[in-house]
Amino acid sequence: MSVIVVGSMAFDDIETPFGKSNKIIGGAGTYIAYAATHFVRPVKQVSVVGYDFPTEELDELCTRGVNIEAVEVIPDRKSFFWAGKYHLDMNTRDTLVTELNVLGDFKPVIPESYQGAEFLMLGNLAPAVQLSVINQLQVRPKLIALDTMNFWMDVALPELEEVIRKIDVLLVNDSEARQLTAEYSLVKAAKKILTMGPKFLIIKKGEHGALLFHANKVFMAPALPLDEVFDPTGAGDTFAGGFIGHLAKTGDISFENMKTAIIMGSALASFCVEKFGTTRLKEITKEDISERVQQFKELTNYQIEI
Amino acid sequence: MSVIVVGSMAFDDIETPFGKSNKIIGGAGTYIAYAATHFVRPVKQVSVVGYDFPTEELDELCTRGVNIEAVEVIPDRKSFFWAGKYHLDMNTRDTLVTELNVLGDFKPVIPESYQGAEFLMLGNLAPAVQLSVINQLQVRPKLIALDTMNFWMDVALPELEEVIRKIDVLLVNDSEARQLTAEYSLVKAAKKILTMGPKFLIIKKGEHGALLFHANKVFMAPALPLDEVFDPTGAGDTFAGGFIGHLAKTGDISFENMKTAIIMGSALASFCVEKFGTTRLKEITKEDISERVQQFKELTNYQIEI
Repeated sequence: MSVIVVGSMAFDDIETPFGKSNKIIGGAGTYIAYAATHFVRPVKQVSVVGYDFPTEELDELCTRGVNIEAVEVIPDRKSFFWAGKYHLDMNTRDTLVTELNVLGDFKPVIPESYQGAEFLMLGNLAPAVQLSVINQLQVRPKLIALDTMNFWMDVALPELEEVIRKIDVLLVNDSEARQLTAEYSLVKAAKKILTMGPKFLIIKKGEHGALLFHANKVFMAPALPLDEVFDPTGAGDTFAGGFIGHLAKTGDISFENMKTAIIMGSALASFCVEKFGTTRLKEITKEDISERVQQFKELTNYQIEI
Repeated sequence: MSVIVVGSMAFDDIETPFGKSNKIIGGAGTYIAYAATHFVRPVKQVSVVGYDFPTEELDELCTRGVNIEAVEVIPDRKSFFWAGKYHLDMNTRDTLVTELNVLGDFKPVIPESYQGAEFLMLGNLAPAVQLSVINQLQVRPKLIALDTMNFWMDVALPELEEVIRKIDVLLVNDSEARQLTAEYSLVKAAKKILTMGPKFLIIKKGEHGALLFHANKVFMAPALPLDEVFDPTGAGDTFAGGFIGHLAKTGDISFENMKTAIIMGSALASFCVEKFGTTRLKEITKEDISERVQQFKELTNYQIEI
């Protein structure tokens, strides 16, 4: 089945306790696409970049099965740029620079060749932009997943609520789930969100794993305990890419298969954090992924007689 | 098999966003004992209380299979008393009052009838007290588990390190594991702790579950996502009680069986937090526990083809 991915493609400058990345390729859309291509090709990418975005990276994306027909290149402007510095705990970070550049007035246009896609992954962007993509699709996809963040809850809540009403799967982290619902208990937050539109809710908890809520069911996916998190940037986007990639590959949107998709997303994310940027997503093989998924299985596997 | 439990028996006064408990029965030893008796009887209790500790509670413990021969009653002094107030997030709390009273110079004496016990659970107490219990045992138990807290790392680190060298299973929370090793990564912290004496390490992460480390193996137990945590007091002790209770019941100290023991501990802890104090631990039945364990299984269960 085919999947449309919408998200930023950008430059990041990352500082962690382990070192500095200098200016490297980043952006939610980039991470999602690289992760998803491990499961499904082509990935129909929707994004915008400036004149400074390297042709080699676009070529690399194409080689790996990303259709960049709807990646607009603005010849006289720069790509989105973000610089940040992680604290020692690697869970919190300071944003040092945000230059929206081409992303500031991004108006995605869905080409005819993208129509009919069964899966849509809306990466973290302004809710109005996410909504415009949904509205351009002539046939509603079988599944629409959306990632967002606290920033949009602060500055564009009505638009966010509007787009959330139209989707099937919402991905947020724990503090965002709390902010969106004004509920501290994640179970209560989940119940509220499941009345706001989405039939499925994924709460990402970083090193503590992820929760999937659907109707009155809940699934808890572990995160692999890692010796070292080298660079957490893009882990959530990579998770989303592995998730939607597995769903699009299998075409199965049952609760049971979403569990598997979450494990796939978690496995990909566990690679992502091992090096700066998208490095690991380009290095890993099918065998690496299988091995990692096996580790996930062993991590929570136990026998019990009741 | 038989188990010795060492821990405080006390009064608590708890305030949560849901209400005030007034003065109720608490103490690590009390929670551990009530939890463990759901799996194994008798529980050979070692503790100290003052004249104010209700005879009815001691009778209740006896009825539930707790041997109180080594629960010393000091006729002219008061029981240990703690008062605390939980913040809105229920994960952090302020201690309002700590009156050590009889606990201040607690010198446990292990009676002849307790000798030969195969399991020893040392609840959170001064490391010197924990050590004195180990030293009084004529035959080393098959398994010694120890719970401790950051306070002892601050004020009695050499004694804590000494007792840790003599045990098999250490139970701490995530911040304590970090403090004990000066490592932020829990995986690195675990590797260090496993060179300090214990062959097994359990890191309790509250609402995020628990990790079990042994040699190069790791197991991640979920915590049940709860609508409401009414009172977290004693959850860690209850976890320890369920854990040691299951091990003592089965007599099996393999890594595989410890996984099961952790699930049992987690299940008991998930009941504990539903009401103030030990209330739920006295109410629940074997059927309630089985049902809860089944929920835990469903929480992390998935099928995946690799």
